Amino acid sequence: MQDFTFQNRTKIVFGRESEEQTGEEVSKYADKVLFVYGGGSIKEYGIYDKVMESLEGAGVEAVELGGVKPNPRLKLVQEGVEICQEESIDFILAVGGGSVIDTAKAISIGVPYEGDVWDFYAEDKTIEESLPIGTVLTIPAAGSESSPGSVITKEEGGLKRDAGSNKLRPEFAIMNPEFTYTLPDYQTASGAADIMAHVMERYFTHEPNVDFTDRLCEATLRTVIENTPIALEEPKNYGVRAQIMWASTVAHNDLLGTGRVGDWASHPIEHELSGMYDITHGAGLAIIFPAWMEYVHNENIEKFARFAASVWNEEVDFNSLERTAQKGIEDLRKFFRSTGLPTSLGDLDVEIDEADLEEMARKCTDKGPVGNFVELDEEDVLEIYQLAR
Amino acid sequence: MQDFTFQNRTKIVFGRESEEQTGEEVSKYADKVLFVYGGGSIKEYGIYDKVMESLEGAGVEAVELGGVKPNPRLKLVQEGVEICQEESIDFILAVGGGSVIDTAKAISIGVPYEGDVWDFYAEDKTIEESLPIGTVLTIPAAGSESSPGSVITKEEGGLKRDAGSNKLRPEFAIMNPEFTYTLPDYQTASGAADIMAHVMERYFTHEPNVDFTDRLCEATLRTVIENTPIALEEPKNYGVRAQIMWASTVAHNDLLGTGRVGDWASHPIEHELSGMYDITHGAGLAIIFPAWMEYVHNENIEKFARFAASVWNEEVDFNSLERTAQKGIEDLRKFFRSTGLPTSLGDLDVEIDEADLEEMARKCTDKGPVGNFVELDEEDVLEIYQLAR
Repeated sequence: MQDFTFQNRTKIVFGRESEEQTGEEVSKYADKVLFVYGGGSIKEYGIYDKVMESLEGAGVEAVELGGVKPNPRLKLVQEGVEICQEESIDFILAVGGGSVIDTAKAISIGVPYEGDVWDFYAEDKTIEESLPIGTVLTIPAAGSESSPGSVITKEEGGLKRDAGSNKLRPEFAIMNPEFTYTLPDYQTASGAADIMAHVMERYFTHEPNVDFTDRLCEATLRTVIENTPIALEEPKNYGVRAQIMWASTVAHNDLLGTGRVGDWASHPIEHELSGMYDITHGAGLAIIFPAWMEYVHNENIEKFARFAASVWNEEVDFNSLERTAQKGIEDLRKFFRSTGLPTSLGDLDVEIDEADLEEMARKCTDKGPVGNFVELDEEDVLEIYQLAR
Repeated sequence: MQDFTFQNRTKIVFGRESEEQTGEEVSKYADKVLFVYGGGSIKEYGIYDKVMESLEGAGVEAVELGGVKPNPRLKLVQEGVEICQEESIDFILAVGGGSVIDTAKAISIGVPYEGDVWDFYAEDKTIEESLPIGTVLTIPAAGSESSPGSVITKEEGGLKRDAGSNKLRPEFAIMNPEFTYTLPDYQTASGAADIMAHVMERYFTHEPNVDFTDRLCEATLRTVIENTPIALEEPKNYGVRAQIMWASTVAHNDLLGTGRVGDWASHPIEHELSGMYDITHGAGLAIIFPAWMEYVHNENIEKFARFAASVWNEEVDFNSLERTAQKGIEDLRKFFRSTGLPTSLGDLDVEIDEADLEEMARKCTDKGPVGNFVELDEEDVLEIYQLAR
């Protein structure tokens, strides 16, 4: 087990009607906020009204910034930064999923910064200062509600890049599982893939003596695997939605990564895909992760056999751990497929030719190799894209 | 799953030589601290010197309060409160195990309070104010390094009572697994029982749809069950000690209790035992917990069958969940015995007669019934003590 420092101060307010506490939580920090949200769904399902009512009840003024799209754009971030600077706003409230929260995080570091906020994403510039943010979560997937990361896409060049700092962990996350009842199936499934990917990025490591966190990872994966099909069949099953929602946070608050270095190759490999073709991130991960596994599993066949046995209940074939490992990878693919997700580039509604794969592989490794389980250079990444065809 | 609020801000600094960061962490809060510790072991093994060196390096002055005993006493707490008031100290550093940390917590609420600090323990008085505290952990067991609770014993009457508030969570916990290499076997085993008890108090609930946290609980229990025998055989096995140490914190930081109400009967039932006879808390729990299980398991035989199957790998006997459940309880007892712990009152080196049991049952329920899985009154508690004979 490696040395680590872990601190996650985000206050989780979880349960039915928890959104009624939004105003109270915000008012501990500010009496005027930038209220960031996405499309019309929070208005359609009454979430917007409930949150506004709670803010008004606490005497908090809200300046709105709607229109955040999946794979959130730099341009809207810059707009948000300007509004905050002009209106002297020093707290950002994100009401939505990962894209909305990541936008809020980007704004929160852009406001006190004199240069272009993209510097933190393009150049890994250290985040010295940021505004506090809070969230009302509506999509369990990205884990951004208590994570230190933010992913933003720059329109020119379709560049999707991330920034991170403990300062970016939200002060609070309000989580009402009922808000996820109306998610389209594809969103529920993509969210599940995203949650699982956050766990798997941490799970696959060569670090010895991390059985404790391995088991916590397996517990989280099994929870998502068991509950997602039920959520698709019974969208208003509270207990099932609640378990997925809480798992989404635990999957990505760094507890499961303590004492080890995660892999984190599949995320940047996928980012090129969703950055270029605007594919849902979780769906992209359902394509990339199994291909990554195919490519790297021989580097630690025992770990992949454990994945098959402990996550997918496969019997271990002691004559061939390879065969056991392959079963686990195939189980993962079958699971994604059963939830309606694509598992190959061919399943997507876009044309991607060899030259595109080459360009993505080049861009993905433009800052150097990706991944820690196996370090992957441009050629490796290209092979993974090819395996994903 | 029930609604919940969860926030654990304690910063964990985990690993080899982490104690070297003590001064830096403390200096964020104060330049003068009360340095609370127990007996001679931290001096004998060089921990005292290392921490002192780190404090000096950061320009932090330390006023010492040594002599904390297991089942920590109110008298020393009151002494600590006086020192802090006289010396204008407003940060407490606890270097030791649960008893030392609980003493520090008690002092931290006593200093800004005008009355007797025992009020918070005897009368469940709400904690409005407290000094910040930090810890350097040397015994993985109580989980007090990031928990909101503190348990103190009042010498007159052998009264062991608890107090709790999120304000009591330490600001930081410095955890070097090497500091646990020199623990006596009995302490290692008692610590394991204490960690397991913290998980089991939360695990046994009738709340439906908490499979996610059930699995996290099982992951933690299995980690302790697997690693404790190795730690006893190889006291200087870093990976094994590290996993036990991190499990001790996760077991009691409330993550495993989210969405459910824990039982918490075995703890007060045991507190009478260690309060009256000064028995190690973990050893007392090894006696009480299996007896409690015997007494209550029929109230939710499925949960106890799950415990047998998922924690102890017992095959489920679908003809008799009762038989399956009994196997799990017996496995727990055998495990405790294999680590050298007592599993019945008869194993203890003290004389306890029927009248003593009656007195303990009366005192244990003096504020009303205990336990949530099953509410236990004086008569129930007496029967559990009798089962524990």
